[in-house]
Amino acid sequence: MSPDTILEFYDIPSKLPGIAWSPNTWKTRYCLNYKGIPYKTIWVEYPDIASTCKRIGAAPTTTKSDGTPLYTLPVIRDPSTGIAISDSPRIADYLEKTYPDTPRLFPPGTRALQAAFYDEFEDNHLKMASFVIPKVALILNPRSFEFFKEDRSKRFGSIAMEDLYPKGEKKVELWKRWKDTWGVVASWMEDTDTFIMGNDTITFADFVVAGWVIWPRHLWGEDSEEWKDIASWHGGRWGRLIERLSEYETIV
Amino acid sequence: MSPDTILEFYDIPSKLPGIAWSPNTWKTRYCLNYKGIPYKTIWVEYPDIASTCKRIGAAPTTTKSDGTPLYTLPVIRDPSTGIAISDSPRIADYLEKTYPDTPRLFPPGTRALQAAFYDEFEDNHLKMASFVIPKVALILNPRSFEFFKEDRSKRFGSIAMEDLYPKGEKKVELWKRWKDTWGVVASWMEDTDTFIMGNDTITFADFVVAGWVIWPRHLWGEDSEEWKDIASWHGGRWGRLIERLSEYETIV
Repeated sequence: MSPDTILEFYDIPSKLPGIAWSPNTWKTRYCLNYKGIPYKTIWVEYPDIASTCKRIGAAPTTTKSDGTPLYTLPVIRDPSTGIAISDSPRIADYLEKTYPDTPRLFPPGTRALQAAFYDEFEDNHLKMASFVIPKVALILNPRSFEFFKEDRSKRFGSIAMEDLYPKGEKKVELWKRWKDTWGVVASWMEDTDTFIMGNDTITFADFVVAGWVIWPRHLWGEDSEEWKDIASWHGGRWGRLIERLSEYETIV
Repeated sequence: MSPDTILEFYDIPSKLPGIAWSPNTWKTRYCLNYKGIPYKTIWVEYPDIASTCKRIGAAPTTTKSDGTPLYTLPVIRDPSTGIAISDSPRIADYLEKTYPDTPRLFPPGTRALQAAFYDEFEDNHLKMASFVIPKVALILNPRSFEFFKEDRSKRFGSIAMEDLYPKGEKKVELWKRWKDTWGVVASWMEDTDTFIMGNDTITFADFVVAGWVIWPRHLWGEDSEEWKDIASWHGGRWGRLIERLSEYETIV
């Protein structure tokens, strides 16, 4: 595929060398790598996301509380069809339909179940904002940091480690809450299964979960106590998940 | 199977002749009928649910806001194993494991996805309380009515038609909200599919949805404008779902 026809994958850069950090864009990177679709990454700082999406024709993901459109990454643009798509579940659907001869993200009959899984997991099982927001703030490039700080401060008051990051008993309590919400997900699965559909079938749902699991590994670092703890939760299933998917971690 | 060894299914009675009304117990009745497991229904008025569960050894489903256990139906008691189980997903799991030669509720690999579907659907797609609570109040037997009134009035203020049932513009707005939350579920599915996993595969997820869809048909009646409207939503899929599952509607 020539550089002009290769699929474009839009992601948010950071100061971490060689590491992609955004949980949402990871879902799409995993999909692209798993399907073996050639692509190139285009790195876009936070303040440039909306204008980039508008320029390439990618729809907003949702609407902000003030009624204006919210543009987010991941986005892909596929020169072979001329189509630009935002939002990781819509991207997964597009890739599945446009590249039917690549490995399946949705085994037959599971699309609706996986859509429900996505909504349930994203809405109710991601209780870690006060831990990760200050960590993200530390790794962003200056332009993205200023944008992120202004936006997230509206929701969280402050995004600084000394203000938002939980301490003492609060840290213990909130860390346990995070663990417990993932414990519910673990309870849905058989103890011996690594993937949502078993041990041999990888699906989009696994990339959704893995996007959020790989996040703390990048933010705290592989050798941190925090990551080691998370990787050990619920019989070590989260560490095992990332390990089993490591062949799809390539960043290009 | 002798009467002493037949599986017992506990449901809540009403004044409606020949009709079972509770959406939660319908999920289990559908499962039992689909699997073809012989059972008998034991009708329990609301104020007797907790004592019945304690007597047969069925665990509470959850904890009330005051910290005391909440006992609910459906419950089954299986004399062949001596086990009593509460909560429709746990009952489905039990039936699947205990009667492996009956039709499957969880096709291989879908248990975790269906658990997520259950939580998502029950928590976010059932926005009809103000319509159905006053209708339920009208059909309960006197003892259950008094219990239901006291319990639900704490949450809804009043359960009387004239107080809680939406009127005028509010009715239009809340009816649309109900429709829209089911519209999200419809959007997860292919337009041509009747069941969550397609047109040929019935699963527990379908019985979960059908339990809530059959509810308005019973509360308003098959010939009502309300039921006809609901049955027509989203390409008529809700009416079609109930129709396709009608062979599992037997009440014994």
